[in-house]
Amino acid sequence: MSFGDDVWGDRTSDGPPQPLFGSRWTPRPEHVRELDPATAGLPAGFRAAGVACGIKPSGNPDLGIVICDSDRPVSAARFTTTATPAAPVLLSQTHCRLDGLRAVLANSGCANAETGQRGMDDAAKTQGAAAIALGVQPEEVALGSTGGISWYLPVDAVLRGILDAAPRLRREGDVDFQQAIQTTDAFEKRACLEVQLPSGVVRLSGQCKGAGMISPNFATMLCFIQTDAALQPHTADLLLGVCVKRSFDRCSVDGQLSTNDTAILMCSGASEVSIQPESEDELRFGEALDSLLRTLGIMMVADGEGAQRIARVVVRGGHDEGVATVAREVANSPLVKTALHGADPNWGRLIQATGAALAGRDWWPTPLIMDLSIQGMLVCSASTPTDCDQDALAQAVQEREIEYEITLPGSGAETEMFFSDLGHEYIRINAEYTT
Amino acid sequence: MSFGDDVWGDRTSDGPPQPLFGSRWTPRPEHVRELDPATAGLPAGFRAAGVACGIKPSGNPDLGIVICDSDRPVSAARFTTTATPAAPVLLSQTHCRLDGLRAVLANSGCANAETGQRGMDDAAKTQGAAAIALGVQPEEVALGSTGGISWYLPVDAVLRGILDAAPRLRREGDVDFQQAIQTTDAFEKRACLEVQLPSGVVRLSGQCKGAGMISPNFATMLCFIQTDAALQPHTADLLLGVCVKRSFDRCSVDGQLSTNDTAILMCSGASEVSIQPESEDELRFGEALDSLLRTLGIMMVADGEGAQRIARVVVRGGHDEGVATVAREVANSPLVKTALHGADPNWGRLIQATGAALAGRDWWPTPLIMDLSIQGMLVCSASTPTDCDQDALAQAVQEREIEYEITLPGSGAETEMFFSDLGHEYIRINAEYTT
Repeated sequence: MSFGDDVWGDRTSDGPPQPLFGSRWTPRPEHVRELDPATAGLPAGFRAAGVACGIKPSGNPDLGIVICDSDRPVSAARFTTTATPAAPVLLSQTHCRLDGLRAVLANSGCANAETGQRGMDDAAKTQGAAAIALGVQPEEVALGSTGGISWYLPVDAVLRGILDAAPRLRREGDVDFQQAIQTTDAFEKRACLEVQLPSGVVRLSGQCKGAGMISPNFATMLCFIQTDAALQPHTADLLLGVCVKRSFDRCSVDGQLSTNDTAILMCSGASEVSIQPESEDELRFGEALDSLLRTLGIMMVADGEGAQRIARVVVRGGHDEGVATVAREVANSPLVKTALHGADPNWGRLIQATGAALAGRDWWPTPLIMDLSIQGMLVCSASTPTDCDQDALAQAVQEREIEYEITLPGSGAETEMFFSDLGHEYIRINAEYTT
Repeated sequence: MSFGDDVWGDRTSDGPPQPLFGSRWTPRPEHVRELDPATAGLPAGFRAAGVACGIKPSGNPDLGIVICDSDRPVSAARFTTTATPAAPVLLSQTHCRLDGLRAVLANSGCANAETGQRGMDDAAKTQGAAAIALGVQPEEVALGSTGGISWYLPVDAVLRGILDAAPRLRREGDVDFQQAIQTTDAFEKRACLEVQLPSGVVRLSGQCKGAGMISPNFATMLCFIQTDAALQPHTADLLLGVCVKRSFDRCSVDGQLSTNDTAILMCSGASEVSIQPESEDELRFGEALDSLLRTLGIMMVADGEGAQRIARVVVRGGHDEGVATVAREVANSPLVKTALHGADPNWGRLIQATGAALAGRDWWPTPLIMDLSIQGMLVCSASTPTDCDQDALAQAVQEREIEYEITLPGSGAETEMFFSDLGHEYIRINAEYTT
């Protein structure tokens, strides 16, 4: 089931251009066309597979491989900034050629985190086995794991899974791969784009996993992106870095940074469309990558554990760190999130979160003078309630996507955060699940 | 109903000394005796009253006054550090003689926050009216408000309430005063102590309000403390500052700093026991004040909206800011709090929260090497799982008070945080309550 199909209508229909994923927050660039993710397959030069190797007691798919068949693959990667990174993150960071990856080995059902030296040895064994099975070098295989922290990886199962998956690799394998990296996800997070560049047509596809930054005992978001465009390593790294900052870094389900977060972009060059630095191609390709990652990021928020509503908060003002701090505090506030859940127009909670975010800071004078709008209605002007129509406001917050805008003193800085609500289902998933 | 009576047994019975409030985290100093808060009344030199003046639509008590009858009262105060302080906080900070307060006027049902200049004018009117009714100067009357943010104070109702309350002021008025400052509190948070000092016997009493740092649409914790000891202003300020840091600053229900938090200590000197700086009296009095505020703080956590379990996390290591950051992140983590709620021994969530707290910091090398104990059982040593008895651990986390200990590299720094769990009742209170 695709979230777009189910909730926001058919996103691949003909007719006037639809925003990606049906969200007002992901307008579709004119030069980008969304392909049906059920049938599009991977861009040229990629194959994937997903199998059930027995990591998950349920017997569900839990091991996936993506391989790039190019002679000269180019890649870029970003990882969690946590101080307690999982073994697959550490190994990928320290033992991989991250700008020239040929393959990704990803598993669900076990995060291989907080597992000490044995966890590192286990990760290295699976990396080596994948390299042999795929005919590449170990340092060309990146690892991604998601699942329970503090559990050791069942290495024998993974090795069997690699042997099982290798002969199944195919261009349409992205569906199986996606299933193999899911944990508590309620729906698939995949998208396939066709991008018209001045120099030709290229494809972009992405598979993402995550129901919040971290799930019940199952850590992580993982995102794997493929393109048949030819990028130089520096360009791939630059574009991935910028787009991750504008997408996953701007999303919060529960504000919990994981031990395993990983995003990897791989470029096969099979389209023979080469993207030169500082070209119009680079600009347009960057826009498409940005749209893809924002779409996947918002999908992840919409699949936040138990989420029923999602929101965007936009914060403007005269201080970069100030607006970023306020946006994050609002997005992570359990009081704002429960009000969002209950469709409660109680905007005092945004004032409280803003004030708390800036406690002890001297970016603006205290008491802070601010404006606040909800769904485009100005409810607070110069820190004083307006006489806005309360009935209209109560009606406006019933929608599925809610937008808050906070204006702080000064100008020049602006940021946004996407976040989900906090409801009973989050509690049920996280409290009633027992290890 | 007293929480202590109901949940942790009779706390005023004879027999071996009981910890204050029945919690293992508030051992009772030998020189301190807890009096029955239902009958003890205020220390000599104080009177209080509480009335229903019509701020709350329910008709419940909503306005309280405490007055000190001493010729030379001494006081100290602490306020929220939010960047959006409420009008009563701003007025008390800028228009009060905080080291010589004679009275406190406190209301529930309206926070008078984010109300602009009109909110300041309203607060000043009530301060002036209270001064006239009580025969003191306006700058000798501090204000405390709790309730909905963004609502204007019904000044006429407050003025009527002041006239109603003034003739009712009496030494046993602390019960009525406590009721007048409550909002969503499930039980009263009061305590009365008798303190044996080298120079004589003094009394300490405190009334506290708060079910979390902030409640559904009702902001704030308020705490008012009275003693008949004679303190110099500098001593009162010093002791209040230290004890607030060790109590309320170490408590989190939902990590949400309020617009209205206020703590005020008033000293009548009526016992004629004078507490000299750097004396044994000062040390012993400080211990008693510390016990009182920690007791009230832990009561507040235990009354955290919907709380069923409370926890203490102790963090040790070689960096002050580092251990403080980790303790706060753990205490505020919705994943740790839902695990606490579900009696789930899933300790990977504490590893995740610790790693997230230290992301981007260089206080310790990454990957972080840490130990973790739960209820005294070592579950993780040098960032590797131990072979601790899983059944015994699962049993140990069923208790009502859970203790976590995190050991980071180095030594010399140690802190603690008290926090409540996160369960369905928090969601019900905060999401299903509609303004």
